[in-house]
Amino acid sequence: MSFNTGTIKDEFAHVDDHWSPRVIADLNGQSVKVAKVKDHLTWHSHRDEDELFLIWKGELTIEYRDRPHVHMKAGDFHVVPKGVEHNPVAADECWILLFEPSETKHTGDVVVEKTRTLETQRSHLSA
Amino acid sequence: MSFNTGTIKDEFAHVDDHWSPRVIADLNGQSVKVAKVKDHLTWHSHRDEDELFLIWKGELTIEYRDRPHVHMKAGDFHVVPKGVEHNPVAADECWILLFEPSETKHTGDVVVEKTRTLETQRSHLSA
Repeated sequence: MSFNTGTIKDEFAHVDDHWSPRVIADLNGQSVKVAKVKDHLTWHSHRDEDELFLIWKGELTIEYRDRPHVHMKAGDFHVVPKGVEHNPVAADECWILLFEPSETKHTGDVVVEKTRTLETQRSHLSA
Repeated sequence: MSFNTGTIKDEFAHVDDHWSPRVIADLNGQSVKVAKVKDHLTWHSHRDEDELFLIWKGELTIEYRDRPHVHMKAGDFHVVPKGVEHNPVAADECWILLFEPSETKHTGDVVVEKTRTLETQRSHLSA
């Protein structure tokens, strides 16, 4: 399949590491990514970017400091508003789709061991 | 649920008409929509907007005039590039997610009986 065309489950099959998003489509300055996540990422925010989570398999909680947490199961979606500190948490492995501007750093301005650069997230596209 | 948070199947439950997109989330100047489609829409293009199709249930073909058609089943995705004439076709009812700029007209500059205004696509949000 060419880029921007594919099958979600095949894209997930290429993902081995937790919290390591894989870009599967680019459009209008935005990217669609798949990721497998487990445990927590880190508290962070995106100053200028809203971020959509769509749960493909499993369950995920978006923890907030200033509002109620949002718990999601497969088929649920939620937009984390720009500028709002949040922390994604999954007790068991969860598969998610992300829609966000292509320049969005997945841990915001925070750099932790789990941080993956944007280049890493799209490294398969230049192979 | 507040806007920008929900369950995909619940959003589909609100859709009665074919080719009548329902906005379920806004982020970064883009919208996520659900739609039920059957038969064909109309040949059209979006001059400045790429359009992502993600198939939730059923099968859909994107017909092109200048390149091979793209046939999709549940879990498949495809981005129609800006400026490229296309025609979505579904032999049986198909449920799709769309991700596109909020100002995208679903039949481009073509107006046909099936055309739904952007106001109609988001009328449930102001209720």
